Amino acid sequence: MRIALDAMGTDRAPVTEVAGAVGALEELESDLEIILVGDRAAIQAELERHPEYSRGRLHIHHAPDRVAPGEAPATVVRRKPESSIVVGLKLQSAGEAQAFVSAGSTGAVMAASLFVLRRLEGVDRPAVGTLLPTARRPILMLDAGANVDCKPTHLFQFAHLGHIYAQDLMDVPSPRVGLLNIGEEPEKGNELALEAHDLLARGAGLNFIGNVEGREIIRGACDVLVTDGFVGNVLLKFYESVAHFIIGLLEGALEEVDSSIDLVEVFRVLDYAEYGGAPLLGVNGVSVICHGESPPKAIRNAIRVAAQAVRSDMVEHMARELNRFSAPTEVT
Amino acid sequence: MRIALDAMGTDRAPVTEVAGAVGALEELESDLEIILVGDRAAIQAELERHPEYSRGRLHIHHAPDRVAPGEAPATVVRRKPESSIVVGLKLQSAGEAQAFVSAGSTGAVMAASLFVLRRLEGVDRPAVGTLLPTARRPILMLDAGANVDCKPTHLFQFAHLGHIYAQDLMDVPSPRVGLLNIGEEPEKGNELALEAHDLLARGAGLNFIGNVEGREIIRGACDVLVTDGFVGNVLLKFYESVAHFIIGLLEGALEEVDSSIDLVEVFRVLDYAEYGGAPLLGVNGVSVICHGESPPKAIRNAIRVAAQAVRSDMVEHMARELNRFSAPTEVT
Repeated sequence: MRIALDAMGTDRAPVTEVAGAVGALEELESDLEIILVGDRAAIQAELERHPEYSRGRLHIHHAPDRVAPGEAPATVVRRKPESSIVVGLKLQSAGEAQAFVSAGSTGAVMAASLFVLRRLEGVDRPAVGTLLPTARRPILMLDAGANVDCKPTHLFQFAHLGHIYAQDLMDVPSPRVGLLNIGEEPEKGNELALEAHDLLARGAGLNFIGNVEGREIIRGACDVLVTDGFVGNVLLKFYESVAHFIIGLLEGALEEVDSSIDLVEVFRVLDYAEYGGAPLLGVNGVSVICHGESPPKAIRNAIRVAAQAVRSDMVEHMARELNRFSAPTEVT
Repeated sequence: MRIALDAMGTDRAPVTEVAGAVGALEELESDLEIILVGDRAAIQAELERHPEYSRGRLHIHHAPDRVAPGEAPATVVRRKPESSIVVGLKLQSAGEAQAFVSAGSTGAVMAASLFVLRRLEGVDRPAVGTLLPTARRPILMLDAGANVDCKPTHLFQFAHLGHIYAQDLMDVPSPRVGLLNIGEEPEKGNELALEAHDLLARGAGLNFIGNVEGREIIRGACDVLVTDGFVGNVLLKFYESVAHFIIGLLEGALEEVDSSIDLVEVFRVLDYAEYGGAPLLGVNGVSVICHGESPPKAIRNAIRVAAQAVRSDMVEHMARELNRFSAPTEVT
């Protein structure tokens, strides 16, 4: 299996990417190979610092250009065809790689993935999935920001995409799918949530558990949490920041009492780097997006996620799922 | 000044309410009087347990009925005219009290407040404001759940209501008003956020600082945070639960190291009871809503908030503000 890794995505590219790739090769199965996509000279120079790396499993594919932060995502394929993002994705569409991982501009990776890999049939809007740490196992929330204005059928499709992801990558045979809402009762919510609830409750072949309130997330009330990309993005960013804030509050207090408590260990459950990147679900391929500030550990874990997606035939399963349980037509 | 307190609202009514009222009278200025509204016998019995209370400042107004949790809010005024919520609010509309505080069903208090107190002119949708603890001072977020489907003009009005609240009750002369969004740039967001940004940026007489992302909330990026009631409610409930969750994680770890750290003190900043209730803003009167699980401290603080609103002429200021800076008409 070959995974294309955008080597020019993080704030410290390609240092972080190379370290993450070397770590992934050490950790993962020996049939995994990684193609580092980006400036050949810079990548090669960085690789010199990792003499332990396995040459036969690490390749470089030169891409002379790079998408800058803040560039308009919609036109990146046209304007930057030689960028590491576009070149890396094209390795996948050409069959030279089975997955793509990037810590570059989220918008650019989404737009380019959509353009190069195309949507799966039955998916109107691919969604970004993200794992939220909870008191139990993590929850897959989607959409985490790809689609800020959604229709009920989009949320319905997200539910099916998340269902397959949870089965194939989270090892949950019958994932509990919840709809993020402001109350548990089916009659609660805004128009979007009401109609999405209606679609999902009609019997969509899912283990739909109904509405999930904001307060139920952290209790691990479901395995897959469906919402639109506006709410999902606000919530995700808030969660990340609130964990940092509370840890900061504590660090001050703990210094005072000279405690031996290891905060890093306590809060490992809240560490996003543990979970790797956020998969773009609903495209005809595997594309995993990482934070621009990702450490090597997050890159390594994103590569692991991408490899799992390939190994489990996730995309093929999603295609079948959407084919089988396509949304009930509105006109009946 | 007289404040009507629904004595039948909390899970432990009227025990909590009576304790909160007695506490408020001890703490607050001597011109404050409280009218406990509810079952006279039950309130009287509970008062016996507080021999220290000041008889001249604590009154009982009998209301034989009570709104049960889960009752449809919309019809509560018609179905339950003798309930403590409706009777308490009518004391205000009749001029016998200047404010109302209740820990009863949020929906019922909102609906009855709207019906009995009426909307201020220029307000299409009154909003629930709530204080979110941050690394700096608290942020007033509105709407926290009254309006799940909003138009841009509603958000525009929320901004003005929040502006006055922050001036009058949070002691911020020029409140920084932010719009909750998924990016800082004006062109980011869903349709609602884009149009609301446009309205607010046109020069609305506010200190509008633009979009505020989820991750900026906890940093105290603004004083007033505007969003629709769906997003606001999800975020509020999530925040409350995540703080509890993290404290739980820590308690386990701290027990192990036998630390002397006082978590209660560290997390006082996250304690909602410190901030009292959530004001319903945009009605022609003062109505403060508390959690059903409020402890006496929260009731006492909600009474303090209500008294401050009366003392600062908040409602009068809001009426003037909305008159002066009414939303630009869509047709120009």
